Amino acid sequence: MRKSIATVSVSGTLAEKLEAIAAAGFDGVEIFENDLLACPLSPEEVRARAADLGLGIDLYQPFRDFEAVPADVLAGNLRRAERKFRVMERLGADLLLVCSNVSPGAIGDDELAAEQLRLLAERAAEHGVRIAYEALAWGRHVNEYLHAWRIVRMADHPGLGTCLDSFHILSRGSDPIGIEAIPGEKIFFLQLADAPLLAMDVLQWSRHYRCFPGQGNFDLAGLTASVLRAGYTGPLSLEVFNDVFRQASVERTALDGMRSLIALEQSLDGVSHPAVPAGFAFAELADTGTLGGLLSALGFARAGAHASKPVELWSQGEARILLNAGGQASHEGPALVAIGLDSPDPGGAVKHAGSLLSPVLPRERAPEDAPLDAIAAPDGTEIFFCDTAWLADFAQGAPAVAGPGQGAPADGGITRIDHVALTQPLHYFDEAALFYRSVLGLRPQESLELPDPYGLLRSKAMSAPDGAVRMVVNIAQVGAGQHPWQHLALACDDVVAVARRLRDEHPDLLLPIPDNYYDDLEARYEVDPELRHLGVLYDRDGHGGEFLHLYTVTAGRVFFELVQRIGGYQGYGAGNAPIRLAVQHAGA
Amino acid sequence: MRKSIATVSVSGTLAEKLEAIAAAGFDGVEIFENDLLACPLSPEEVRARAADLGLGIDLYQPFRDFEAVPADVLAGNLRRAERKFRVMERLGADLLLVCSNVSPGAIGDDELAAEQLRLLAERAAEHGVRIAYEALAWGRHVNEYLHAWRIVRMADHPGLGTCLDSFHILSRGSDPIGIEAIPGEKIFFLQLADAPLLAMDVLQWSRHYRCFPGQGNFDLAGLTASVLRAGYTGPLSLEVFNDVFRQASVERTALDGMRSLIALEQSLDGVSHPAVPAGFAFAELADTGTLGGLLSALGFARAGAHASKPVELWSQGEARILLNAGGQASHEGPALVAIGLDSPDPGGAVKHAGSLLSPVLPRERAPEDAPLDAIAAPDGTEIFFCDTAWLADFAQGAPAVAGPGQGAPADGGITRIDHVALTQPLHYFDEAALFYRSVLGLRPQESLELPDPYGLLRSKAMSAPDGAVRMVVNIAQVGAGQHPWQHLALACDDVVAVARRLRDEHPDLLLPIPDNYYDDLEARYEVDPELRHLGVLYDRDGHGGEFLHLYTVTAGRVFFELVQRIGGYQGYGAGNAPIRLAVQHAGA
Repeated sequence: MRKSIATVSVSGTLAEKLEAIAAAGFDGVEIFENDLLACPLSPEEVRARAADLGLGIDLYQPFRDFEAVPADVLAGNLRRAERKFRVMERLGADLLLVCSNVSPGAIGDDELAAEQLRLLAERAAEHGVRIAYEALAWGRHVNEYLHAWRIVRMADHPGLGTCLDSFHILSRGSDPIGIEAIPGEKIFFLQLADAPLLAMDVLQWSRHYRCFPGQGNFDLAGLTASVLRAGYTGPLSLEVFNDVFRQASVERTALDGMRSLIALEQSLDGVSHPAVPAGFAFAELADTGTLGGLLSALGFARAGAHASKPVELWSQGEARILLNAGGQASHEGPALVAIGLDSPDPGGAVKHAGSLLSPVLPRERAPEDAPLDAIAAPDGTEIFFCDTAWLADFAQGAPAVAGPGQGAPADGGITRIDHVALTQPLHYFDEAALFYRSVLGLRPQESLELPDPYGLLRSKAMSAPDGAVRMVVNIAQVGAGQHPWQHLALACDDVVAVARRLRDEHPDLLLPIPDNYYDDLEARYEVDPELRHLGVLYDRDGHGGEFLHLYTVTAGRVFFELVQRIGGYQGYGAGNAPIRLAVQHAGA
Repeated sequence: MRKSIATVSVSGTLAEKLEAIAAAGFDGVEIFENDLLACPLSPEEVRARAADLGLGIDLYQPFRDFEAVPADVLAGNLRRAERKFRVMERLGADLLLVCSNVSPGAIGDDELAAEQLRLLAERAAEHGVRIAYEALAWGRHVNEYLHAWRIVRMADHPGLGTCLDSFHILSRGSDPIGIEAIPGEKIFFLQLADAPLLAMDVLQWSRHYRCFPGQGNFDLAGLTASVLRAGYTGPLSLEVFNDVFRQASVERTALDGMRSLIALEQSLDGVSHPAVPAGFAFAELADTGTLGGLLSALGFARAGAHASKPVELWSQGEARILLNAGGQASHEGPALVAIGLDSPDPGGAVKHAGSLLSPVLPRERAPEDAPLDAIAAPDGTEIFFCDTAWLADFAQGAPAVAGPGQGAPADGGITRIDHVALTQPLHYFDEAALFYRSVLGLRPQESLELPDPYGLLRSKAMSAPDGAVRMVVNIAQVGAGQHPWQHLALACDDVVAVARRLRDEHPDLLLPIPDNYYDDLEARYEVDPELRHLGVLYDRDGHGGEFLHLYTVTAGRVFFELVQRIGGYQGYGAGNAPIRLAVQHAGA
C-alpha cells in the first residue's frame, strides 16, 4: 500500500523533513500547515522539491473551525478557505483535511454542518480540491468518527469524504468495527498513530504522546483491517505529535516510521515471525582482561577459543559468554557488544529484519568459520541469529594462554541466560520497543518508571511468548551524567546456594545491599534472615510467584545479575532496582 | 516558623540530601522511606548525621494501606508497623505519616478505620511514636481531608492526629477553609506543595509535577493561613515529587525550596515588595564591537561613556542600552549580561532579594561612581536596582572614540524597553519563575509550549502589575544543541514607520519572514499588505488588542524585537514565535 507521513511527525525544517521522508522510502506526505508557514520556500518550490524526491503531496492539513457556524462567520470562513485552496493549487495538493469545529461558537446542528460542508466542497471543486472531514476527539459537537460520517453522508457531495484518524477513534474507546459501515470510496484518508495508555486530557495526550504503530497500546492492525475491509484504497499515513520525536534525528525517526508501517502491513498480511528466538545462544562482552576472573568466580569455565579471533568461549550449563579481547571495549571498560539468539531459521530471521529496515552487518570471517548473520539493534548492540554451527568455531581451539577459569568447576549453579538489559540512546526508547517487537517478535511486558538517585529510569521489558528470551530496555533521565549500565541476568536453580559460595569465596564481587532494605523486607514478608547475610534481594508477585536475585559489582559498563524464578514469576524485581541504582551510584 | 522538607524533594543519596538541606537552612526533614532503604548508613548513623547538621527528623513517611482492613490483614499490618516503630526509634523520629488506604481490599467503614487507627496509635505510643493520618487524593474510601479528620476525631486518641497536604487538598478542588474546623493541636503535620494546573490523572500529576510554593497555580498562602488560624504550630514542610528536581543539583534545589518557604512566610506576614520595579533603567550587553552599528541603525545615539569603565550608554526615548566592551562577551559573541530596573527603593530591594537568598553581587566601582546594587538572576544575568544617580556616571563622559551612533538621530521611533526574554539553564525553569515572582514581585502571565523545528520551547511571561516591566523566561528542549538566544524587545509608537526606514536603510538587519506566513495571515485577517513587504508580524487577542512586531537578525546570543501594542494587547505574539525560530535556525 501507498505509505505517507505528516511532516509534523519528524523534526527539522520542511526541506529537511521532505528529504528524510523520501530517503526512508515513503511515497507521499501530508503537509502540516505550520511547516509550510515557517518555510522560506514558496509552495511552487515545495511542490518541485517533493516531486524531485519522488514524494506526492497527499494531503494539506489542518483546516479548523469551519462548519456549523452562523452566517456571518461562514462568510469569513469561506474567504479563509479560498485562500487555502489557492495555496493548495500552487502546492499541487488536492485533498484538504477539515477537522470538526472546536470553537465555543459552533452550533450543534448536523444539518447546518452538512449544508456548510457541502458548500465548502463545491467551492473546493472549483480548485480541483476535495475535502476530508475528520472528527477530532475533542470536537465541540462532532467527536465520534461515525458522527462525522453521518454528516458527510447527509451533505452528499462527491468531493466530500471522511478522514479517519486512529488516535481520535481509539483514544475515545470507540469501536473501529463501525468503519465497515462506511463505503470505502467515502473514506478519503487514513491517519495512523499509536499511543501509550495515559490517564490524561485527550488533547494533551494527542499533542505530546502519540507514537508510531506498534510502539503504544492501541490495536492499529485491527483498525486498519476494518478500514481495508470497508474498501479504502488510499495511503496509510502516519500523523504523530511526540515531544521526543521533535527532538530526535529526522532521518532516524522517518526510518522508524517506515518500519512501523511495514510491520503493520506484515501483521495485516499474517506474516509470522521467522525470527522469534528460541533462546539465548550467547552474550558477547568486549573485555579488557578483567572479566575472566569474574566469570570464573561465577563458576564459568573456559570452553574454547575462537579459531581465528581473540575470542574465548566461557560456559556454564546452557549459559555461554564470549569474551572478545579484540579491542571493542570502550574507554568505559568492558561492555556488552553482541547477543546471539538461537534461531529456528537464521537466514529467514535476517531477511525478516532486513525487510524491517534493520541494518544487516557485514561480517568479517575466515573461510572456515561458520556463517553468522547479524543485525544492529537500536543501541548498536549486534544481534546474531544462530543455529548450533557457530560452536564448532570454538571446538578445536584450546585456550591459547593459560589463565583464570581453566579447571574451575563448570557447575556454579547457573543454568542459562535469563535476560539482557540494555541502556538505549536518548530519544530512541520507542524505536527500541518497536525493534524488539517487530524484528525479533518479542511481546511487550511491563513498562515502568523507577526512581534513580539522580533522576528517573524508564524501563520496558519484552519477552518471547515462552519466556525463553527476555530483553529489558532502559533509558536514564538523570542529571549528573548518564549511566550507560548494561547487565546480563543469569538464571540459577538455587540462587541462595550460589550466593553462599560467592560470599565465602569472592565477597568483593557482590554488590552490597543496605541493611535498611532488609529491615523493610522483613517487615513486609516472612523471609529467611539469611537473605540479609547473603545480599540476596526478594520480590513477590500477586500470583504467588517469587523472585530471588543478587547483583555483582560493575566492570566497565557491565554487571551481572543472578536470578531465580519461583512459581511462574514473570517480572524482573523492578521494585528492588532503585536500591541497586543507589548502591551503584555510590560506588561509581 | 520551623521549616522542613521531605528528602524525596531533592536529588542524590540520603547523605547528600541531608547535607544540602542543612546548608539551605532548613530546621528539619521528613525521611522518605525509600531514601533510607537505599542508604548504606544505619538509622543510628542517619540520626547522628542529621543531628550533626542541626536537622531534626520531623516525620518518617509513608506508611501505606493500614486501616479499614479485615482482621487477618490487620495482624500483618500491625506486625509491619511494629518493625517501622523500631526503625523510627533508632532514627529518633517520633511522628509517622499514615496515608489513607488505596488497596482494593480496604473497607469503606469509618468506624472500622477509626478503631484500627486507634489501635495503631496505642501501639505507636509504646515506642514514643505518634501517628499523622492523611487523606491521599486517590485514597480508596478516604480522599478528602475533612473525611480523614472525621475518622481521627472518631478514633479519639492523643497520639493520633491528621496530616494536611496542600496538594491532596487543592488538587481535588476542596476548599481549605474547612481546615479551620480542626483544632490546631490535632493537626500533627503540614506538607506543602504547589503544582501547575494540569488535566491529568491526579496520581500522575502528584508523582511527577508537584513544585515548590509559588511555582505553580495553587493558593498556598491561603491554605497555610487557614492552617495557622486553626492553631497549628508545627513545621512548614515541603513535599515535592518532580521529575526535573530529581535530575537537578541538590544544593540548588534545596536552596530554592527554602526560598519558596521564606516567600510564603513573607506573604503570610503581609510583607510587600519593596523591589517591584517601576520600569527598565537599562539593559547591558557585552559587546565585541558589533552592536554599535546595530543600535545606530535602530536609531539609538551614543549618549555618554562611563567615567572609569569601558562601557558606553546608548539611548533613544526612555530606552537605554549599555554596551560593555570589558570582556564579558562569551565565545558566542554579544550577550545580554545585565538588566537595570528603576527601583523606588534600591537598598530595600537588595535587602528583600537577600532575604530570599538571592546572591548579592560584589561590585567593583571607583569611589566617584554611583552606588549600584546588583543580584544574580537564576541564569546568571545581573539585576541592578537603580535610582537615577547611575546616569551621572555617564554624564560627563564624552565618547572616548568617535564611532557609529554619534550624530545619529536620537528618535528612531523607539520609546522604551518593552520586555526582556532570557533562556534559562536546563532544570531551573521553575526556579526562575519563583525568582521573578518573589524577588522582583512580578506576576505570572501566560505559560506556553511552542514548537521549535528541533524540539519545544517552554515559555513563561511575567509582568509588573502595571506592565512597566515584563520578563519572559524560556527553556529550550531541543535535540540538535541548545540555542541560548536572548532578546530585548523595544516598544515603538509606530512599528510600521520604523520598519519602512529600516527596510530602506538597513534591509540586512531585518529577520526575513516567509511569504507563506503572510498568505496565512491574510487568509485569517484583513491586514495591510505592506506588512508582508516590511516583514512585520501581526497578532490579535480576543479583546480587540493588536500586536505588531519585527525582529532583527541575531548578533551572538542576542537579537532585538521592535513591538507596538495597540488596544491593551498584553501578550507577546507567541503564535508567531515558531515562525521566528524556524528562520533563526535556518540562519544559525
